[in-house]
Amino acid sequence: MKKFILLLILSFIFNGTIYSQTTHSHSHERIIDFPDITGYKTITCDLHQHSVFSDGEVWPSIRVQEALKDGLGAISITEHIEYQPHKNDIPHPDRNRSFEIAKKVAEKHDLLVINGAEITREMPPGHANAIFLQDANALKRKDVIEAFKEANKQDAFTFWNHPNWVAQRPDGVATLTDLHRQLINEGLIHGIEVVNEFTYSDEALQIALDHNLTIIGSSDIHGLIDWQFKVHEGGHRPITLVFAKEHTEASLKEGLKARRTAVWFNNTLIGKAEFLVPLIESSLLIKKVGSLSSYKGESLVPQVTIENISDIDFILENVSDYTFHNHADVVEVKAKSLTVIEIKTIEEKTTLDLKFRVLNAITKPNTHPEIVLKIK
Amino acid sequence: MKKFILLLILSFIFNGTIYSQTTHSHSHERIIDFPDITGYKTITCDLHQHSVFSDGEVWPSIRVQEALKDGLGAISITEHIEYQPHKNDIPHPDRNRSFEIAKKVAEKHDLLVINGAEITREMPPGHANAIFLQDANALKRKDVIEAFKEANKQDAFTFWNHPNWVAQRPDGVATLTDLHRQLINEGLIHGIEVVNEFTYSDEALQIALDHNLTIIGSSDIHGLIDWQFKVHEGGHRPITLVFAKEHTEASLKEGLKARRTAVWFNNTLIGKAEFLVPLIESSLLIKKVGSLSSYKGESLVPQVTIENISDIDFILENVSDYTFHNHADVVEVKAKSLTVIEIKTIEEKTTLDLKFRVLNAITKPNTHPEIVLKIK
Amino acid sequence: MKKFILLLILSFIFNGTIYSQTTHSHSHERIIDFPDITGYKTITCDLHQHSVFSDGEVWPSIRVQEALKDGLGAISITEHIEYQPHKNDIPHPDRNRSFEIAKKVAEKHDLLVINGAEITREMPPGHANAIFLQDANALKRKDVIEAFKEANKQDAFTFWNHPNWVAQRPDGVATLTDLHRQLINEGLIHGIEVVNEFTYSDEALQIALDHNLTIIGSSDIHGLIDWQFKVHEGGHRPITLVFAKEHTEASLKEGLKARRTAVWFNNTLIGKAEFLVPLIESSLLIKKVGSLSSYKGESLVPQVTIENISDIDFILENVSDYTFHNHADVVEVKAKSLTVIEIKTIEEKTTLDLKFRVLNAITKPNTHPEIVLKIK
Amino acid sequence: MKKFILLLILSFIFNGTIYSQTTHSHSHERIIDFPDITGYKTITCDLHQHSVFSDGEVWPSIRVQEALKDGLGAISITEHIEYQPHKNDIPHPDRNRSFEIAKKVAEKHDLLVINGAEITREMPPGHANAIFLQDANALKRKDVIEAFKEANKQDAFTFWNHPNWVAQRPDGVATLTDLHRQLINEGLIHGIEVVNEFTYSDEALQIALDHNLTIIGSSDIHGLIDWQFKVHEGGHRPITLVFAKEHTEASLKEGLKARRTAVWFNNTLIGKAEFLVPLIESSLLIKKVGSLSSYKGESLVPQVTIENISDIDFILENVSDYTFHNHADVVEVKAKSLTVIEIKTIEEKTTLDLKFRVLNAITKPNTHPEIVLKIK
Repeated sequence: MKKFILLLILSFIFNGTIYSQTTHSHSHERIIDFPDITGYKTITCDLHQHSVFSDGEVWPSIRVQEALKDGLGAISITEHIEYQPHKNDIPHPDRNRSFEIAKKVAEKHDLLVINGAEITREMPPGHANAIFLQDANALKRKDVIEAFKEANKQDAFTFWNHPNWVAQRPDGVATLTDLHRQLINEGLIHGIEVVNEFTYSDEALQIALDHNLTIIGSSDIHGLIDWQFKVHEGGHRPITLVFAKEHTEASLKEGLKARRTAVWFNNTLIGKAEFLVPLIESSLLIKKVGSLSSYKGESLVPQVTIENISDIDFILENVSDYTFHNHADVVEVKAKSLTVIEIKTIEEKTTLDLKFRVLNAITKPNTHPEIVLKIK
Repeated sequence: MKKFILLLILSFIFNGTIYSQTTHSHSHERIIDFPDITGYKTITCDLHQHSVFSDGEVWPSIRVQEALKDGLGAISITEHIEYQPHKNDIPHPDRNRSFEIAKKVAEKHDLLVINGAEITREMPPGHANAIFLQDANALKRKDVIEAFKEANKQDAFTFWNHPNWVAQRPDGVATLTDLHRQLINEGLIHGIEVVNEFTYSDEALQIALDHNLTIIGSSDIHGLIDWQFKVHEGGHRPITLVFAKEHTEASLKEGLKARRTAVWFNNTLIGKAEFLVPLIESSLLIKKVGSLSSYKGESLVPQVTIENISDIDFILENVSDYTFHNHADVVEVKAKSLTVIEIKTIEEKTTLDLKFRVLNAITKPNTHPEIVLKIK
Repeated sequence: MKKFILLLILSFIFNGTIYSQTTHSHSHERIIDFPDITGYKTITCDLHQHSVFSDGEVWPSIRVQEALKDGLGAISITEHIEYQPHKNDIPHPDRNRSFEIAKKVAEKHDLLVINGAEITREMPPGHANAIFLQDANALKRKDVIEAFKEANKQDAFTFWNHPNWVAQRPDGVATLTDLHRQLINEGLIHGIEVVNEFTYSDEALQIALDHNLTIIGSSDIHGLIDWQFKVHEGGHRPITLVFAKEHTEASLKEGLKARRTAVWFNNTLIGKAEFLVPLIESSLLIKKVGSLSSYKGESLVPQVTIENISDIDFILENVSDYTFHNHADVVEVKAKSLTVIEIKTIEEKTTLDLKFRVLNAITKPNTHPEIVLKIK
Repeated sequence: MKKFILLLILSFIFNGTIYSQTTHSHSHERIIDFPDITGYKTITCDLHQHSVFSDGEVWPSIRVQEALKDGLGAISITEHIEYQPHKNDIPHPDRNRSFEIAKKVAEKHDLLVINGAEITREMPPGHANAIFLQDANALKRKDVIEAFKEANKQDAFTFWNHPNWVAQRPDGVATLTDLHRQLINEGLIHGIEVVNEFTYSDEALQIALDHNLTIIGSSDIHGLIDWQFKVHEGGHRPITLVFAKEHTEASLKEGLKARRTAVWFNNTLIGKAEFLVPLIESSLLIKKVGSLSSYKGESLVPQVTIENISDIDFILENVSDYTFHNHADVVEVKAKSLTVIEIKTIEEKTTLDLKFRVLNAITKPNTHPEIVLKIK
């Protein structure tokens, strides 16, 4: 029997390595790519996922392979503690089992697999994830407060899932109850999903800001990432960017507990200005500075080439003192591309500050951060 | 000799008709497509182009074929009156010649070819186009005012070209001189290019608004449209949309003289609110209205599917009384696609007004029009 | 608990139906499409697949969704009887379980799900599939001959899997042993995989022809079809085409037992001429017949437009009495496209026979079928 | 006036250089790319083209830009001597004018521009090109034989154009007349178009082989290369590959006169085996040799990875002593890609010869060259 397992692995390597060369591989194009910011590494995370061990449709190994294709830094497969629709087929009593399988599959890769579970209750408090668990089984408690206490005893990071879920909030409006306030006030819950699957909640963002909760975005995937988020039509899963000192499990937890996150959802970035501003400024490199030519030689129109090294198409509103020669006030700066901006300014200057409001980034409901690009 | 001409035409039909079927033709994808607005047909025009008869690089027939591929409603090939760099090779003294050739090539097509010419002078007044000419040769005048008078005598529509051109305005800032004021005040000049080739001028837009000039955008093409505007990478030439009573030369002139235009430049629309608002509202159709499902049945979250039938990717800022369940406040509504918007509203209503500021449309410098989508 | 299951289904419908409209859906492009032939429907089948219930990586529901995306007519999930590497996690003793789950997921779709299992032994006889089973559990027999007898007792269709598998045949050469001869002679084994996953075996094809075994091709998928066969780069899984009287389970079995199959592997078709010839001739429609034009009017060169309605890029070698005006002797006729063929023939004729050898179709090792396209 | 010319050039540089960076440039993908062969450089040429100076639709500068985009090594714009439909507009009497303009535009590029002209007569002898001319005007002769004599006096290379043209040969069959035989026998005509625009002539190839004429393929472009040959859907113009000692005008002429050419037409290569065999063998590099893995370690199945560095999708028929584990006998080896071939051979060997017949290469009518890939 043992030989079959060996074969499976060999066959995987063989197909992956050798056949992947028979045609141009475009897999690098789907790698999710954000720059680091000063002082921190930017870790791309999907911390809310399911496998066949709760109500998902894949073996945990597929979750690892999806993460490797997306180039993620960390994942957690957070099976429902209280909801096991496949229980008749998979009666395994150990709620850590999904993690163990995924961890083993990932062991030779630069991907952190975090043990996690989903506390799955009626509203309130609804669903919540606990990650960085020692033992998920210990979360099986009748009293939901006890489950959160156990998670915290294990030094887990916990967050409220989809507070806007229409199955539990028919109006889709994330709303705090007394039970939520208690969990927050007692430090039992640390974060909140502002983004879950296809949804974004302005109200959840406001709760996060009001109560200093970590801003989280997750796929909550049950089927396949590729199909659910139309990856081959240019889509991507929602992710949490964690600004961590190192790419380790300990640093990741420290970053999450310190509220150093942002969320990438469709073409929108969500987070506090203190992280969004350096993240966006690090994404936009001044590649070249010159002057637009005219037949008399150099014109008085400086020409700046900006490289967007991130995966976001930024929508920038010009709030500088200058108008542009080749754009109106709203400038789209496409992902992984060069954009040329020509600046009308009567005076000759040695430095210029280009100031933009980033319209597809949100620091508070209806509030967009401003960045400065210094041109020399 | 005659047989060669016949052959050329037959060969063109043969290649165009029969060979175009050997692979999937994607040519319909490049057709520039905007809806009509109440009371007017929307005519897509490129009214500033060149051929070998002044300083361009193609025979006028290519300009017609480019326009047919782009599905334009009207073109004008506006050769320089005073600048003929190919004169040694093409000494033809008749400045209407380019028009005549193009007109003949287009005769079986639903494309208006308008006789035009470019009055080509030092600044002031710089360059200006006169279109709907009876005889372009009559514009050869020493005194530039006389050239404009002649154009008006022929009942031409005239517009100031690229007032921001760095070869004539090294700072790129469109500026009125006394000569321009005189031409405007005497009714000799009717429009102004706010967009020329790769440039947009906020200052030219302000001049248009201050002096009630028709807002014009043109390719000013000398080489090939496909190459210059990277059509096969998704680009397009700048065009003027004219809101005309009918798709005739007379109606087109009437619309231009009545200032009923907008300009499409990259992904930006420029024009007066009275035209942009109906144009955008006509571009966004309410395709389907329902409620987001939950396991308890219908949720309280209305779900609206919007079809964008235009070629613009609209960037909409939500200024409604509602927040959205699946978008932050800035919503990208892609061209020729469906977009789903889910609305959080506590009260049940029979009608809803979705209000958006259209960030990539400009009615004045830094001013964006607001539209209303009525949901029933 | 019941509500969660309901929700899962609703959520699937919601995502699938409504969100799939937000961008152009290209899913129809991956539908595997072959024409029927006179007297038979052409059923596209993948009869050798795995799920988590043996050594696969997905829940059976994913196999159904993959098949729906590929537009298949029938599938069988054939778990290993003797090899259950996930047994500790999924101890379910019923070998029909995987089928039952898939059957239920497919119940509202036009997809046949066939109960099957893989008899998994050392060579000889190696691995074999039995499909159309009543009860897969009954195949657990110590004596392999008894397992085949049981399958036949259930009126199953059985076929020898990957006889060329290097793990069991290090030289990759499919070879009959006495045990195989016995199984064939006693009518216990009916078919043979000529194609398995990435491999094709000339020797297996010869065995099929020599011993009148049904020609089978299968994906033997363990992971995801999309990834293994690079579907988004234009690849596809290997399939068996069954020529059946109706699209029913009974007809499918009858067609398989009657040896009426062909295999599609990469860009190659494999099968007996009696099925390949009508299949290819049904794939190539004469769309238009005319004459190439010249300036003197019609030339003497007939011009024929052929539409290939299948998913194969045919490679045709001209073996007609005519040479072509626009092709050399080898003509590529791309899938789902029109191809124009111009024919040089001195005599004027009312009918023409175009004869081609189809180089990417195989009826015996190194033997390619010839087709005739009759032009009127 | 002079300033406008300067401006035109500056503006071209500005648009070409700076704006081409605003999006990913895929222009390198259209570069036509073939390897050199031992002893010779492979020069890609299009030696039959038209501009507005005869019956074409573009200024000669466009022909240079098209050639630069296609990465050609040499072009000739061969205006009709006797056919000038634009004569009223372009009365220029100098038939070298088109060449002079193109030559100047190309002067900073690594592109040879060859002076040429098309002797344009009724059949016989039909049309013929003379290239490497000193003075095209001297070809204006009443007697066609005198025109050929003059070309040869100038040491030109001459070739018979489209001998299969239905306007002159209604049946499309290239046929020698006494006049052609005379021109060939007297050494006045050196080559023949086997490919012109969309046509290929088996009969012209046979004439070339029977009479030792240089094999030529040309676009005969009048409109735009991109449109005529659907470059953005993957098409390309027909070209002549000249095997020359150096990339100079003198070497190119020597190679053409020495009959060292091949033609690339759609996906077909045409030429003598002495050039096609080394060209194809140089296109297919052995990138990696190993053994297919099995769980017992190395199998007995050698696995060879072949890189096709050319722009042709080769269709190879296996004529080796071996069958393949992952392909039937016909193997498609796509352009600019890796292809893996796994070989079934019982004996262990240190070297293997893979022999293929190249089905989309033609050395004589219905005859395909054989190549050998030596595997160590």
